Amino acid sequence: MKGAVDMTHGGGGRASAELIRDLFQKHLGNELLNKGHDAAYISAPAGRLVTTVDAHVISPLFFPGGDIGALSVHGAVNDLAMAGALPLYLTAGFILEEGLPLADLDRIVSSMAAAAREAGAKIVAGDTKVVERGKGDGVFITTTAIGVAPAGVDISPEHARSGMKVLLSGSIGDHGVAVMSSRENLEFESEIVSDSASLHEMAAAILAAVPNVAVLRDPTRGGVATALNEIAAAAGVGFVLDEAAIPVKLGVRGACELLGLDPLYVANEGKMLCICPAEQADAALEAMRSHPCGAEAAIIGEAVREDAGMVRMRTEFGGVRVVDWLAGEQLPRIC
Amino acid sequence: MKGAVDMTHGGGGRASAELIRDLFQKHLGNELLNKGHDAAYISAPAGRLVTTVDAHVISPLFFPGGDIGALSVHGAVNDLAMAGALPLYLTAGFILEEGLPLADLDRIVSSMAAAAREAGAKIVAGDTKVVERGKGDGVFITTTAIGVAPAGVDISPEHARSGMKVLLSGSIGDHGVAVMSSRENLEFESEIVSDSASLHEMAAAILAAVPNVAVLRDPTRGGVATALNEIAAAAGVGFVLDEAAIPVKLGVRGACELLGLDPLYVANEGKMLCICPAEQADAALEAMRSHPCGAEAAIIGEAVREDAGMVRMRTEFGGVRVVDWLAGEQLPRIC
Repeated sequence: MKGAVDMTHGGGGRASAELIRDLFQKHLGNELLNKGHDAAYISAPAGRLVTTVDAHVISPLFFPGGDIGALSVHGAVNDLAMAGALPLYLTAGFILEEGLPLADLDRIVSSMAAAAREAGAKIVAGDTKVVERGKGDGVFITTTAIGVAPAGVDISPEHARSGMKVLLSGSIGDHGVAVMSSRENLEFESEIVSDSASLHEMAAAILAAVPNVAVLRDPTRGGVATALNEIAAAAGVGFVLDEAAIPVKLGVRGACELLGLDPLYVANEGKMLCICPAEQADAALEAMRSHPCGAEAAIIGEAVREDAGMVRMRTEFGGVRVVDWLAGEQLPRIC
Repeated sequence: MKGAVDMTHGGGGRASAELIRDLFQKHLGNELLNKGHDAAYISAPAGRLVTTVDAHVISPLFFPGGDIGALSVHGAVNDLAMAGALPLYLTAGFILEEGLPLADLDRIVSSMAAAAREAGAKIVAGDTKVVERGKGDGVFITTTAIGVAPAGVDISPEHARSGMKVLLSGSIGDHGVAVMSSRENLEFESEIVSDSASLHEMAAAILAAVPNVAVLRDPTRGGVATALNEIAAAAGVGFVLDEAAIPVKLGVRGACELLGLDPLYVANEGKMLCICPAEQADAALEAMRSHPCGAEAAIIGEAVREDAGMVRMRTEFGGVRVVDWLAGEQLPRIC
């Protein structure tokens, strides 16, 4: 695909129609999207509907292990999954910057289509706008996912209770470090690759094994530290983590030292936290490990009555430190 | 509200949480959004679900008769309405540019909240990202609407048939001309104001009066000309319009002459086209006129067998001209 996005692609005329047909429909087409109507009639089986929205502004658009297209599906699917829902439909709004190579857009939309297929979700509505050079940055993609949760499922941050265990599905910081090293042109001995992936199957496996799971949460922007602080605040519990139990890849640990980052605050795009009653923790752990993305799953801490709203961590050196909210901005435009 | 958006507002840490609480929740809060979960559990009554997405990049953010906040609700609600659906839920993704005054954002979100309340829709999920100065343009808002259409309703561009009448709910070009004159700092004798408004009630009134209505369409980007060309292509019919019957405000007509625009191609944000069997046209017209936004509604033409896929117009001088697709880009960033 040759050429670049220009302002006529956003005008709603012939150029817009051609871009939609030759690029978006080519990759994303299905019987609902192809109707070319302003809105899509959809149907949902019995169950509770769940919806969510994610705006994606990641820079660069392509990074080791993924791109903004796949990420924009994973991000929305995972937010649904964290409510125990399976994705059915996606909508996508594209904001293109004049000058974006159409070949890049083609690659991004193709990757988006593959991620949606893998997640079993159809993209049923889309919209494209174009802004002048210098008023955007390549492409921004905002996705909304609509899905269904089994009746009775009610997963929510405020359901965490003291005594419950905190599980993590795998190593942290991979996504943030992959993006940062790509942005800064850093090379490490072992290539660090984003973990960007859909987690709805892992979440469904956990729900099947532990129907009374209290909280599922994907630690994206702000990382595990921010996610647990939010849950602590919502539920009025404290958390005590065990640093030695938290998986961090050697390469990620090294890169974080070099970049002055704490992996606990670095974004993940294919990891989840699970909080459940202690007596079900082993079953949840097994369910996580049954999924390819959860091979390194571990119990990393527990919820406690003391210091409600706070997250503390037993360090590898035997001390205890507070894992506070992220004060400033650690990694801009990481998702 | 003082200060401006900075990169920490997008970091997912404390500043993000405060922005959400002090600005977004203040205006948009409801029992679903306030849960602070990554996804919202929603419920829908019996009927067909309908969904749609609209990305909004309008410039300037504030214009006579509206702003990007209200527009982002109207745009999504109207796309649903054109499928015969009433809006229930909205999701909103915000892409903020570093440096945007928080007072402006506050005003925009407040206006969005008012438009959502008027439309009877709840904003149940939101996401906010921040990009560096020069990588965005104030604020972009992508909204997805989810609603319900009565069982049996099936409105779609391809349902237009020759012999059907084309109705228009009021004067054209108001929105585009209001935005352009605000952008170009033009002043006209009479202030031209955007028609930005939600049309779901008018659409429901038409459906109640004429259940077998074939097509509803809001002529936004590209205007009435583009909307009818799209419908002609989808349905394989031709359209013949009657120029004298198409309402254009005097001020809009004058501004268009000055700006070198054809009102037929100028965007509207509170008008609709309706295509229905000739024998029901009067009932549809009456339904349109029963709504404050439809006082000037008129029958502006009909679908014909000849010249399938084309739109022609009987001019006020007695000739016939082709109303082609918009070739280039007439008005950038009009919605």
